[in-house]
Amino acid sequence: MLLARDLFEDIRAERLSPRDVVELCALAIAEQEADVGAFAALDLDGARAAAAAPGLAARPLAGLPVGIKDILDTADLPTAYGSEAYAGNQPRTDAAVVRQVKRAGGLVLGKTTTTEFAFLKPTATRNPRRLGHTPGGSSAGSAAAVAAGMLPLALGTQTGGSVLRPASFCGVTGYKPTFRLLPTVGMKIFSWHLDTVGLFGARVADVAFGAGAITGRDLDLVDTDLTPPRFALVRTARAHLADAGAHAALEAAGRAAAAAGAEVRELDLPAEIEAADAVHAIIQDYEGAVSLADDYDRGFLSPLLAGHLTAAAAIRPDAYDAARRTAKRARQRMGDLFADYDALITFAAPGEAPEGYGSTGSAVFNRLWTLMGCPCVSVPGLTGPKGLPIGIQVVGRFGRDHRTLAAAAVLERAIAA
Amino acid sequence: MLLARDLFEDIRAERLSPRDVVELCALAIAEQEADVGAFAALDLDGARAAAAAPGLAARPLAGLPVGIKDILDTADLPTAYGSEAYAGNQPRTDAAVVRQVKRAGGLVLGKTTTTEFAFLKPTATRNPRRLGHTPGGSSAGSAAAVAAGMLPLALGTQTGGSVLRPASFCGVTGYKPTFRLLPTVGMKIFSWHLDTVGLFGARVADVAFGAGAITGRDLDLVDTDLTPPRFALVRTARAHLADAGAHAALEAAGRAAAAAGAEVRELDLPAEIEAADAVHAIIQDYEGAVSLADDYDRGFLSPLLAGHLTAAAAIRPDAYDAARRTAKRARQRMGDLFADYDALITFAAPGEAPEGYGSTGSAVFNRLWTLMGCPCVSVPGLTGPKGLPIGIQVVGRFGRDHRTLAAAAVLERAIAA
Repeated sequence: MLLARDLFEDIRAERLSPRDVVELCALAIAEQEADVGAFAALDLDGARAAAAAPGLAARPLAGLPVGIKDILDTADLPTAYGSEAYAGNQPRTDAAVVRQVKRAGGLVLGKTTTTEFAFLKPTATRNPRRLGHTPGGSSAGSAAAVAAGMLPLALGTQTGGSVLRPASFCGVTGYKPTFRLLPTVGMKIFSWHLDTVGLFGARVADVAFGAGAITGRDLDLVDTDLTPPRFALVRTARAHLADAGAHAALEAAGRAAAAAGAEVRELDLPAEIEAADAVHAIIQDYEGAVSLADDYDRGFLSPLLAGHLTAAAAIRPDAYDAARRTAKRARQRMGDLFADYDALITFAAPGEAPEGYGSTGSAVFNRLWTLMGCPCVSVPGLTGPKGLPIGIQVVGRFGRDHRTLAAAAVLERAIAA
Repeated sequence: MLLARDLFEDIRAERLSPRDVVELCALAIAEQEADVGAFAALDLDGARAAAAAPGLAARPLAGLPVGIKDILDTADLPTAYGSEAYAGNQPRTDAAVVRQVKRAGGLVLGKTTTTEFAFLKPTATRNPRRLGHTPGGSSAGSAAAVAAGMLPLALGTQTGGSVLRPASFCGVTGYKPTFRLLPTVGMKIFSWHLDTVGLFGARVADVAFGAGAITGRDLDLVDTDLTPPRFALVRTARAHLADAGAHAALEAAGRAAAAAGAEVRELDLPAEIEAADAVHAIIQDYEGAVSLADDYDRGFLSPLLAGHLTAAAAIRPDAYDAARRTAKRARQRMGDLFADYDALITFAAPGEAPEGYGSTGSAVFNRLWTLMGCPCVSVPGLTGPKGLPIGIQVVGRFGRDHRTLAAAAVLERAIAA
């Protein structure tokens, strides 16, 4: 894989030029893209031209190539949202986060595949860890491109589990920041209270560096003291939906963290937090039916998505309002939890990537945390019985992204040890 | 003016057809649009054709024409966001709220003017109450079109005071619902924590009816018991910025409400709430600089807006985070306030519409309430020393829109008595 933080150092030290890194991507793409299918659009020549910009190496991303999930608008590359109805669509402006990437000195090398409108209809993308398996969804292309070494960084989005799940399946780091830390302006919206822009990289250090560079916030871990944190090991009321491999991985992660000096205590979530899991779907589907109402009426949706939203249209405003109140109570309760813990560790997915392409897998271990709006990181390094990756999800306190990333880095190091 | 609630009754009782109402609009447009300039795009023939749809009268809006502020995407009419850079722009889909209007049986008769990206650069629209005066902004065309009797209902948006202020200046009812009651999906975003879609109509009953029909929520006032509420009369720490006419109008409104049986008590806002007023600009400008970053870099902005965002780019993330925390504390405190009051009454604007078109007036009495996310209604009926309208702002509890509208209707009736 291409290690963003290390490539950044290489560019700053003039061991590599931005153009050299573009060529590393181009080489991997030439070797693997035909098998993996991670890109909806590619612009290698554009990236090569942009790599020659004076002063690029001095900027926060130093000219590193970044993939953009094709649910985000780009004015210079087509933006199809994974939908045939938007083939050839070319917005007038970039999404806000895409412009942030460019301002930080990132090179937009291509658009990565997304399921249709970031919902469930699978892409043609294949898991580079083992072809024949799903890379997960909806941010399929971003996870796969990073896993295949075709990109050091790629933007994704999560409404249920669309960053954490593909990161787990592809054995990369997926980082879903605190809600709205990265802007959603210029994203095709599904659910305005849930849609969250996130980032993929090889290791925790890479996404921390990338997110810090993009936002201008203090997120990079290079000078961070990685004191072992206080972890709560959380299986949730849905533990029975995780397979034996996922349980074994979570227990191994807990042991590794404890061996590295972290405090690890098992925790049952308070009932008010568990109760919010069931209302995620009400909020997602009610808002999705509103957001995509015009696409629905114009016949722009697949039968899968149209059918889902036909059912969603039956959700009444008072049920939606009640769901929002349940979520608000759970979020308040989450704040209390972090008096005793720095971060939670829990399942990132129910197990390894499923075989085949009929499904992108389940978001059952992600949707609650998306609804809570808190930062989540899928930490790679463990594998399951099939030999495929299993990520461990680190969940932090709302707004405490740096601390959460630091906790994830401790876990990553402990797992590797 | 065209009274939406009454026209609805006329259509349901077959005293008028949807086509008849379109022709009422067409007549007023023929007489007044050349002077007022409320429309960025007009589609009378499209509205006439849509008025013939079978079953239209049975739908919630019964075929009433609705104007759409040109900051909201429409696929069948050009969408320029008040910006020359977007001349001829035609999105692929309607904004979510536009589709809600259509599903409710509303006819999209035209796009109404907006200041550039709903910021401060004035439109060419003139105040139909007295030409030569600003109609206010940014929802200039929607307020002016309703005031001139060219439309019974029109959508606007508010980030600072862009619904309440033009409603006050034009002598119509402006309703800014609870944050996100009407969806912002497909709106050109300025500030994601502030941008709010609202509605203009002649009277409180008209916006309550319209918003209920568009959202499927119980907001209509026709069967509502209009018990005199408990009002807090609030002048705020910015009272010195209201002119003598505005003070006289607010006092007259308080006396009228008391005479109608309402409890009216003067209230100084708690310090935590007053403190939030100063952070509105930090949140608006920080988010505006992010949202419009690509437009900025592509040279799509006027010098006025580009200059504003150049300054805004100096706001650091930690100042923004601190502003968000101040706003959160104030919102929590707002909840407590409504234990003792059903609604607040306060200034909607510093006075009558200013003469000339150099400025759209001040949002100084609106921005705090936008930040609080609570429902606000500008109630018409009073005039100032120049003989121009002065609205009274009714502010309600977050999520209690029906109660707020009912309180506003009581005040409206009291003022008229």
